[in-house]
Amino acid sequence: MPKRQGKYTLLLPSKPSIIGSAAVAGKKEKEGPMGTYFDLCFQDTTLGEESWEKAEARMQTEAVNLAIQKAGLTNAAIQYIFAGDLLNQCISSSFGLRGLGIPFLGQYGACSTMAQTISLAALLVDCGAANHCAAVTSSHFCSAERQFRFPLEYGGQRTPTAQWTATASGSAILGAHQTDTPFVAAMTIGKITDLGIKDAANMGAAMAPAAMQTLLDFLNDTHTTPDDYDLILTGDLGSVGAALLKELLTKEGVSLSSNYNDCGILIYDAQKQDVHAGGSGCGCSAAIVCSYLFQKMREGAFRNVLFLGTGALMSPTSSQQGESIPGIAHLLQFRMPS
Amino acid sequence: MPKRQGKYTLLLPSKPSIIGSAAVAGKKEKEGPMGTYFDLCFQDTTLGEESWEKAEARMQTEAVNLAIQKAGLTNAAIQYIFAGDLLNQCISSSFGLRGLGIPFLGQYGACSTMAQTISLAALLVDCGAANHCAAVTSSHFCSAERQFRFPLEYGGQRTPTAQWTATASGSAILGAHQTDTPFVAAMTIGKITDLGIKDAANMGAAMAPAAMQTLLDFLNDTHTTPDDYDLILTGDLGSVGAALLKELLTKEGVSLSSNYNDCGILIYDAQKQDVHAGGSGCGCSAAIVCSYLFQKMREGAFRNVLFLGTGALMSPTSSQQGESIPGIAHLLQFRMPS
Repeated sequence: MPKRQGKYTLLLPSKPSIIGSAAVAGKKEKEGPMGTYFDLCFQDTTLGEESWEKAEARMQTEAVNLAIQKAGLTNAAIQYIFAGDLLNQCISSSFGLRGLGIPFLGQYGACSTMAQTISLAALLVDCGAANHCAAVTSSHFCSAERQFRFPLEYGGQRTPTAQWTATASGSAILGAHQTDTPFVAAMTIGKITDLGIKDAANMGAAMAPAAMQTLLDFLNDTHTTPDDYDLILTGDLGSVGAALLKELLTKEGVSLSSNYNDCGILIYDAQKQDVHAGGSGCGCSAAIVCSYLFQKMREGAFRNVLFLGTGALMSPTSSQQGESIPGIAHLLQFRMPS
Repeated sequence: MPKRQGKYTLLLPSKPSIIGSAAVAGKKEKEGPMGTYFDLCFQDTTLGEESWEKAEARMQTEAVNLAIQKAGLTNAAIQYIFAGDLLNQCISSSFGLRGLGIPFLGQYGACSTMAQTISLAALLVDCGAANHCAAVTSSHFCSAERQFRFPLEYGGQRTPTAQWTATASGSAILGAHQTDTPFVAAMTIGKITDLGIKDAANMGAAMAPAAMQTLLDFLNDTHTTPDDYDLILTGDLGSVGAALLKELLTKEGVSLSSNYNDCGILIYDAQKQDVHAGGSGCGCSAAIVCSYLFQKMREGAFRNVLFLGTGALMSPTSSQQGESIPGIAHLLQFRMPS
């Protein structure tokens, strides 16, 4: 049963575990520094489907099926699936998961969605509402570009602060505590934070204040400092947002050192892969967390990790209407059993 | 702490109560049969804002503020807000609620979203993760028409099976059990159900099979029949979907009698208000449940009610790509304390 700690943090005393996880990704992601960690990569952006949207839905199907299989379970053993994506009306999730027969709860937190789905999945296991829950999100460069920006054929120039939407999907299965895999120790759900950034090609800057707020709330609630953790990993602030987060935190008297990293920075080689400020998209942090992070934790490289999923809660319509970009960040503390 | 009952149902033994609720709506909704139940109605579709999207966001702000006020609380007393809407990237929720300072969990279940938000809000109160949670959703005829169908200026003909997106928002505050207001006794989260309906102007037909499946799952899990309830209320199947639900259930040996109704049928006078098959939109069931239903329950007219929020999980893109319409339905059992 969850236990409240401070104003914003929940501890999960039953220590629900990541009993299975999987990540699938595209060609560019396979060629990046994280390529060897992904379970499955696709050479073709359509995965043989008729559209990029259908390809993205297929990635969710593949990721969740692999994760369930790696957990040694069948669909029937999963009580709830929490899923979301960036496409309008979250169609990657509804179409990708409609064949599973698992009770479905659609989530929307933009690029913070993976942190949100794992948080709720872990909470439902911790409180006994479920024996097993699944969490999954995805993004696809081509479906995102044409929905949020321009037709790919247009060949629009990207600004230096722009991030590259990752073609990827990650899924995690939460279950009762196990001793050989990471567990969710705590979670802090974020508040919407809007400091007035209006540049939709600089989402790192729009999300950084939210990441700062949620991290400060968690550190305050738990009376800890960044040095107490082996790794602090933000979702996808990219290089611009990550630098801004450090700067914002310094003003608050908190410093992030070499134990800080960002999924948007990790997923591509910024020099060689022409991605400007780094990766983004629901699938970016999902794939990194569900492959690299959990594997490194199982190997003992990290034992106590904070993951902050970050999201920009705007739409093309809101930006066209002159609105600023509300940001959000949800924090999860993952630990390896000692 | 929630208790599983059968395969799909959760009982909430702490009986979390609806400690406050409010509904706001537009002019057409005020002129309908439910008009007198709404807390606040707006004569102008823009609410004085610059766009319909901003107006819809404002409706969420108004509904949730009223609900918090009626619960006798302040924002600081609410640990989580679950919110969603139909607009791309759920901007009514993110922009309408960004000023609240309450940890935010965006939900997407199309028109089933109100059932989903109340379910999760009640669950988090029941398991002790929160003292109070808020749930809110909205829809707006004008913002929905231009996003999902045609510019209003085009004056497109509507088909007889089409439903009218309600301009409305409803919010409920969940808290510890109280003796004078309805509580959430049980919940059944639905599975995605897709029988191949492709007509986006007949969403009642697309959602009816999901409503049937979730209702059968609940009745099976609880060993009850429709006659055990004072009212069975579907979200917004409208007249076409509601008739289809009855027909589908009859084939399964279950009959819905005069204790069955639908929010999409209740909200407008179908004869006088030219709404064809009835109302729809996240705000339709949200406004009916958070005003009429809870008020009638407090007055003793209904003591044991099943509410089935129903959603069509498609997008214009998926329909244009020839996809069918996946449906979903989540069930809540509301009871008055005896």
